Amino acid sequence: MLRLYDKLSSGNGYKARLLLHQLGLPFERVEVDTLGGATRTPEYLSINPIGKIPTLRLEDGDHLAESNAILYFLAQGTPYWPGEPRTQAEALKWMFFEQYSHEPAIAVVRSWIQYENMPDGAEDQLARKYQDGYAALQVMEDRLAEQDFLAGDRYSIADISLFAYTHVAGQGGFDLAPYAAIRAWLDRIEGQPGFVPITLG
Amino acid sequence: MLRLYDKLSSGNGYKARLLLHQLGLPFERVEVDTLGGATRTPEYLSINPIGKIPTLRLEDGDHLAESNAILYFLAQGTPYWPGEPRTQAEALKWMFFEQYSHEPAIAVVRSWIQYENMPDGAEDQLARKYQDGYAALQVMEDRLAEQDFLAGDRYSIADISLFAYTHVAGQGGFDLAPYAAIRAWLDRIEGQPGFVPITLG
Repeated sequence: MLRLYDKLSSGNGYKARLLLHQLGLPFERVEVDTLGGATRTPEYLSINPIGKIPTLRLEDGDHLAESNAILYFLAQGTPYWPGEPRTQAEALKWMFFEQYSHEPAIAVVRSWIQYENMPDGAEDQLARKYQDGYAALQVMEDRLAEQDFLAGDRYSIADISLFAYTHVAGQGGFDLAPYAAIRAWLDRIEGQPGFVPITLG
Repeated sequence: MLRLYDKLSSGNGYKARLLLHQLGLPFERVEVDTLGGATRTPEYLSINPIGKIPTLRLEDGDHLAESNAILYFLAQGTPYWPGEPRTQAEALKWMFFEQYSHEPAIAVVRSWIQYENMPDGAEDQLARKYQDGYAALQVMEDRLAEQDFLAGDRYSIADISLFAYTHVAGQGGFDLAPYAAIRAWLDRIEGQPGFVPITLG
């Protein structure tokens, strides 16, 4: 059986969890105490040298890291991965955007506020992170004002990737009220077959 | 003809440039003055709303953003993209690692030093970025001590993605001397057919 090393509150973990549920794939979930250092132990680093969650243990005992790579792997041969190379590249474009331009602002601020773990001296970074986060939201808003989903014309792992931290952006103090197209897209995703909330393990 | 909106000193631009050369694909290159604000003009944002380089203009006039998504698209159907889904996922794992754990440390420090554009107050971040950058290098070193290339057993776009900023890490003050496996891997990449240096447009 598949095994997901995960953290329930993590959007990165939730990406894998949501797709596993939507695919109807049974899996066992191991909650990892990331804030307590459990991703830095020799045991954990032996399965994921990058030292982050999620990590997916495959049925052959091999391990795959990086949330968006896990989405790619699980989605192969399913409708969650687009069929055309140009649309595939567009999905990946959004997933790289997620890791570089969205997550480091929106997810990091959420973590700082939710866990009160903002590093000393990071107050100066906070304003910049709000600015970067809102800029990322605007890029999404402009796309979603024209199309129902991010890559091509149907729901894909690009939507899962960006849904994960966008739908909880309010927990970091981001106000989604002005982003009507994003809010409609969040609703569309919550209406997808097999959808489960981030709070479900 | 393909057109690459690019910046010669950019590792992200170089990723696309290097693969285009290795594939023998003719392209025209447009140098974009990123530091002078040329990626924030309405004209540029209309082709890449994320406002970064590189952007690839395809032959049909459509535009693709995000360096690693461009690599994916260009590599389809070529030996630079692995054939097996598990190895493909591993290549993407390294490419997401590049954008999240490697580039924000190693490329950003290089830019701060090379262009003397470190933001006010970022001195506190510098030590952390060196720490993060060396941690990323160690993850690569451990992999490359066991295998010649990052994903599977042959050269792929995962290697191109991480070569881009690793081989110029010294320009940001990173010392690669202790990383013997990385240095041997850099040599292997420079010996690949069609290799061109970052200085070649």
